[in-house]
Amino acid sequence: MTDKNKPLSGEGLRGQSAGSTALCTVGKSGTGLTYRGYDITDLANHAEFEEVAYLLLKGKLPNVQELKDYKQTLVHKRGLPSALCSVLESIPADAHPMDVMRTGCSMLGNLDTELDFSEQSDKSDTILAHLPAMICYWYRFSHDGVRIDTAASDQNSIAGYFLDMLSDDTPSDLHIRVMHCSLVLYAEHEFNASTFAARVCASTLSDIHSCVTAAIGTLRGPLHGGANEAAMAMIENWATPDQAETTLMGMLANKEKVMGFGHAIYRESDPRNALIKAWSKQLSESSSEAALYDVSERVEQVMKREKDLFPNADFFHASAYHFMGVPTKLFTPIFVMSRVTGWCAHVFEQRANNRIIRPSADYIGPEHQDWLPIEKRQ
Amino acid sequence: MTDKNKPLSGEGLRGQSAGSTALCTVGKSGTGLTYRGYDITDLANHAEFEEVAYLLLKGKLPNVQELKDYKQTLVHKRGLPSALCSVLESIPADAHPMDVMRTGCSMLGNLDTELDFSEQSDKSDTILAHLPAMICYWYRFSHDGVRIDTAASDQNSIAGYFLDMLSDDTPSDLHIRVMHCSLVLYAEHEFNASTFAARVCASTLSDIHSCVTAAIGTLRGPLHGGANEAAMAMIENWATPDQAETTLMGMLANKEKVMGFGHAIYRESDPRNALIKAWSKQLSESSSEAALYDVSERVEQVMKREKDLFPNADFFHASAYHFMGVPTKLFTPIFVMSRVTGWCAHVFEQRANNRIIRPSADYIGPEHQDWLPIEKRQ
Repeated sequence: MTDKNKPLSGEGLRGQSAGSTALCTVGKSGTGLTYRGYDITDLANHAEFEEVAYLLLKGKLPNVQELKDYKQTLVHKRGLPSALCSVLESIPADAHPMDVMRTGCSMLGNLDTELDFSEQSDKSDTILAHLPAMICYWYRFSHDGVRIDTAASDQNSIAGYFLDMLSDDTPSDLHIRVMHCSLVLYAEHEFNASTFAARVCASTLSDIHSCVTAAIGTLRGPLHGGANEAAMAMIENWATPDQAETTLMGMLANKEKVMGFGHAIYRESDPRNALIKAWSKQLSESSSEAALYDVSERVEQVMKREKDLFPNADFFHASAYHFMGVPTKLFTPIFVMSRVTGWCAHVFEQRANNRIIRPSADYIGPEHQDWLPIEKRQ
Repeated sequence: MTDKNKPLSGEGLRGQSAGSTALCTVGKSGTGLTYRGYDITDLANHAEFEEVAYLLLKGKLPNVQELKDYKQTLVHKRGLPSALCSVLESIPADAHPMDVMRTGCSMLGNLDTELDFSEQSDKSDTILAHLPAMICYWYRFSHDGVRIDTAASDQNSIAGYFLDMLSDDTPSDLHIRVMHCSLVLYAEHEFNASTFAARVCASTLSDIHSCVTAAIGTLRGPLHGGANEAAMAMIENWATPDQAETTLMGMLANKEKVMGFGHAIYRESDPRNALIKAWSKQLSESSSEAALYDVSERVEQVMKREKDLFPNADFFHASAYHFMGVPTKLFTPIFVMSRVTGWCAHVFEQRANNRIIRPSADYIGPEHQDWLPIEKRQ
C-alpha cells in the first residue's frame, strides 16, 4: 500500500511502515484478521479470552495446565491496593470512564512500579487483572454508593468477573460466553493509533504503566474507541426497523456520519462483525428489548444498499452489550480490558528490538524572525 | 535527510516526515533551533518563560499588557483542587516523580475535563500552572511532611514559583533568571518522541489531558528525559577535574555510555548548550560546590578530544540545577513543566488539520496456524 511518490505530510502515516510485528495481520486478504497466525474466527469461536491473552503475552496457545495456572494467577491479582481504591473514590461520578481507567493505570504505576524489564510479564498480568476491578470499583462506588470487594468473586475468567462485579446478579453462562468472544475480538489490531502510541512511549524505554496509560488516553478519542457507544446512542432512539430506516435515510441525506460502519483498513467486510452479530441475535431472543436487534439489522441493510458500507466490529457490539445489561458508558472501558493484551505484547516487541520513534516534520512556519524587545511590540 | 531507498522498518521513523509543523525547526543549518521562527539564543537571552509559552500557545510574542495579563491568569490557576491534593498525598515518597506528574495530570482530567476543543487554550493554561504546583505539593508532603498552600506565593512567574514552593527560602533573582532560561530552552523541540506521542493521541481527537499524560509517560523513558539526572549522577562522584578525567577515560575504554553528549539531530553542537553553560559558570561562582563546574568543563574537554562529541542541552543543566538547590530527582519534572507548552501547541496544530495517525507494520510472524483444541496442545 505504500506509495513513495505521494506527499505524506499530515496524512497520518497511512500505508507507511513504522516497524515490524509478529503479532497480527489486518486485512492481508482484504478481510482477514490473525493473531500470531491464528484466524480470528477460530479464536472467537473456540478460545476463552485468557487463552488469547496468553497467546499474545506469552507467545503461544496454552495447554490445559498452563491455562488453568494462568487464570489462577490472574484471579489472585484482582484485589486492588487501598491507595488505588482511595484514588478511584476521589473521582466524581460524572467523570469520563476512560479518564478513570487512565488515572487508575497511572496510579498503579506509583504503587507497583516496573523497576526492570524482567518484570514486564508480571506487571502486565497485574494490569490485565486490575483494569476490570478498577472500572467496576469506581462505577459501583460513584453510582451505587457501594464499596465492592474486588477480590471476592467466584468467577475464574475476566469475562465472568467483569459481569459479576458490575451488579449484584450472577452472570449467566451465555453472557459469560459472549463476553469472552467480545474480549477476543477486541484484543489486538496491529498498529492502530492506541497501540502505536504505546510503542512510541515504549521506544524511549519508559515503563509499562506509562505505555498503557498513553494507549488508554489515545483510545479515548472518538475516532478510535467510542464507536460502539455512538452506535448505541443512535439505535436506542428507534423503536422499530421502519422508524430506524426513515430516520437513517434522513441522516444520510444530510450527510451525517453513521458510527460503526466502514473501516480504515478493511475494504470488503470486518471479519469480527459476523461473530458478534450472531451473538447479538442469540441474546436478543431472550431479551425484552429484542427490537434493538431488528433495528440494528435494518440499519445494516440500509447502509449496504445506500452507501455500500459494511458494519465494523463496533456496530453489533452495541446491541450485544446492551442485552447483557452493560451501561453504555462502560463499552469503551471493555475495549481497554481486552486491548491491553495487545498493547503490552507490542511493548514487549518494541523493547526487544528498539530504536526510539522520532520522525521528522515538514516545516511550514515563518522564516527567521528578528527579536523585538517587548516594549516595541504591538 | 530522508532516504527513500533505505529500509525503514523498525528504524524509529528516522528521517521520515510524519506531518507538518509551524512551531519549530531543529538543526536546519546543523546547529540551529527556532520556535515559530525566533532563534533560541534570542529567546533564551531576552525572554521570560511566559513570553515563550505565549508564543507557542497563542501564536505570537505578547506585548507588555498581554504578558502581564497572561502571567496573572497563570497565577490565578495555581491552586490545586482538593481531590487532586488527596491523590498526590496517596502517592508514596519513593515513587518516580514522573509517575507523580503523569498521575496528577491524568487525575486533573477527571476534575477539569476538556469537554470541547474550544476549551483547549484555557485547559492548557491550567495544566501549565498546575504542573509545578503538583510536583511541589507531592514532594513537600511526601519528603518533608508539609502540606503547602499552592496558591500562596508572591512569585509572578513559573520559574520563581517553582523555586519558591520547593523550599521555605525565597529564591534569588539570579536563580529565577536561570530557571527562566532553562524553561525556555526545554520548551519545544519539534517531533521528539514525547511530542509525537501527544500528536498520536490527539489524532484520535482525544482530550488534552490524555495527550499531555501520554507525553509525560513517554518523556519518562531514559532515552528521552532523564539525561540531565544521569549526568548529575555521574559528575557528583568526582571531586576534582583530574579525578573526573581519570575515571572518564576508564569509562570510555570500557565503552560505557556517557549521558549528556551528542544528539540524534544536531551534528555539530547543541545550540542550547552554550546558553545554560554560561549560567552554570555564573552560578558556580557563588557556590560552595564550585568544583562541580570545573569537573563538568573537564568532562566536556575530554569528550571532545576523545570522541569528538559535544554536550547537549542536558549536560550543563545538571550542575546548574544542582547549584540552585534542586534535588536531582526533580530535574525531569522541570522538563515537563517547560515542554508542556510545546506539547499543547502541537496538539492544537494536530487538531487543526487532523488525520488519525495509523501507520502500517511489516509482518514478520508465523504464517497461517491451524486451530488445535486445548486438549491436544503440548
